[in-house]
Amino acid sequence: MFVFNTNLRVRYADTDQMGYVYYGNYGAYYEVARVESLRHLGYSYKDLEAQGVMMPVLENYSKFLLPAKYDELLRIEVTLKALPSVRIQFYYRIFNEQEQLINTGNTLLAFVSKDSGKPCRPPQILLKLFSPFFDEAKDLK
Amino acid sequence: MFVFNTNLRVRYADTDQMGYVYYGNYGAYYEVARVESLRHLGYSYKDLEAQGVMMPVLENYSKFLLPAKYDELLRIEVTLKALPSVRIQFYYRIFNEQEQLINTGNTLLAFVSKDSGKPCRPPQILLKLFSPFFDEAKDLK
Amino acid sequence: MFVFNTNLRVRYADTDQMGYVYYGNYGAYYEVARVESLRHLGYSYKDLEAQGVMMPVLENYSKFLLPAKYDELLRIEVTLKALPSVRIQFYYRIFNEQEQLINTGNTLLAFVSKDSGKPCRPPQILLKLFSPFFDEAKDLK
Amino acid sequence: MFVFNTNLRVRYADTDQMGYVYYGNYGAYYEVARVESLRHLGYSYKDLEAQGVMMPVLENYSKFLLPAKYDELLRIEVTLKALPSVRIQFYYRIFNEQEQLINTGNTLLAFVSKDSGKPCRPPQILLKLFSPFFDEAKDLK
Repeated sequence: MFVFNTNLRVRYADTDQMGYVYYGNYGAYYEVARVESLRHLGYSYKDLEAQGVMMPVLENYSKFLLPAKYDELLRIEVTLKALPSVRIQFYYRIFNEQEQLINTGNTLLAFVSKDSGKPCRPPQILLKLFSPFFDEAKDLK
Repeated sequence: MFVFNTNLRVRYADTDQMGYVYYGNYGAYYEVARVESLRHLGYSYKDLEAQGVMMPVLENYSKFLLPAKYDELLRIEVTLKALPSVRIQFYYRIFNEQEQLINTGNTLLAFVSKDSGKPCRPPQILLKLFSPFFDEAKDLK
Repeated sequence: MFVFNTNLRVRYADTDQMGYVYYGNYGAYYEVARVESLRHLGYSYKDLEAQGVMMPVLENYSKFLLPAKYDELLRIEVTLKALPSVRIQFYYRIFNEQEQLINTGNTLLAFVSKDSGKPCRPPQILLKLFSPFFDEAKDLK
Repeated sequence: MFVFNTNLRVRYADTDQMGYVYYGNYGAYYEVARVESLRHLGYSYKDLEAQGVMMPVLENYSKFLLPAKYDELLRIEVTLKALPSVRIQFYYRIFNEQEQLINTGNTLLAFVSKDSGKPCRPPQILLKLFSPFFDEAKDLK
């Protein structure tokens, strides 16, 4: 299992007139958590695209337990429960400054070749970076 | 069952560098479909808030089948499968101009009193407007 | 002079906790007004990009006179005061449902060749469509 | 003169299909720079609102010199050239990772009382925090 935490400050732009973060903005929050978790591993999503692989989102689910509010410094915990195959699933838990769990969610993404538009395997280097966190990947180490 | 269709034009602002509508923007698309379906019934979400009831989102799920692209005139079909109680669930299907199904999703919202911050029943007038579409609501007619 | 009016409904997603449309969202509102004015003329910005020309924004200015609020059906008046050259300037005035002027602004965009990345002339067809509205363009008619 | 620098990472959500940061998103970037500059001084915009003062935007201007691109770590330099009165003007310069100046802009905001909806003086504490940076404010020190 791979777990990583990212902090993110709620912007005024993110709020709505209810005084909460608009539910549509959690997609961008999840994105930040995913990308920073990869960067922490030493991997750049930008480089992935430069190498001809993109990662469109296939499914996204969010459960809103408590509102996120303006200027709060949120902590987003992102978890990978399995080594990526042609798909990769990220799980999230978002906590506010009082360490209350305010949101849970998950996103399923595909690896797709830019040229063919078809699903492809994740880059070998990405699998190697994840492998220390998963037992089934021992042979990749 | 209550079904309503709304058209929505994809803005440049909605796209990302993949050339697709960014997945986080579907939240706003769903919102437009919900609000326009209520307006068609003769009900205004704005008035609901003015009357002291707000509708925070509890859960949201999206499945992305095909990308939505810049300038496409999408059709969003919104469906209610049950009369609202303290919660209301909207189901969506989004079609592109070629009538391809590109996205399905659903959103669960609560009725919450602004004063108490607690869940409340939907306004009686809203139930009456929905009742012709649901058998179990015959006694409300 | 070319003048065109577009209607646009304020979404919940556009509001902020002040209960106003967030100032950053006027960029997308202006975009809708620009694109719809071209569509009215019979021209599609999407086709322009497909033909290898893109229109990045060079400058943008907004003056906020009164807030735009949730669910208001705004009217955006877009004006061209001169025939486009390698640049095109759009002027806007936004009115709320009470016909109060709530915002004025303008955007300067360039025509840029996708291949070379360099400024280019607008497509001849676009100049022809605009020419009836400008005296200096009589010879294009 | 008061000058402060903030770093901000470009999100995928911020890009458009041109591969650039959409021009409407600079409003949120400027907001981050403003708010972080106040936080650096020891002042919280959140507290300001809690004390009954809000700061709606009156004018905003942006000049786009070079595109900002996905995943770039931008540096936003925010400058106050004068002590705030009933209005406050922020100037920005945005630099990319190659230290190229990509954007300049400025935003004029008002101090407005939430209760009366009318312009008001900035809180005395805010003036005191800014005063060391401005000669004309010596008597506030």
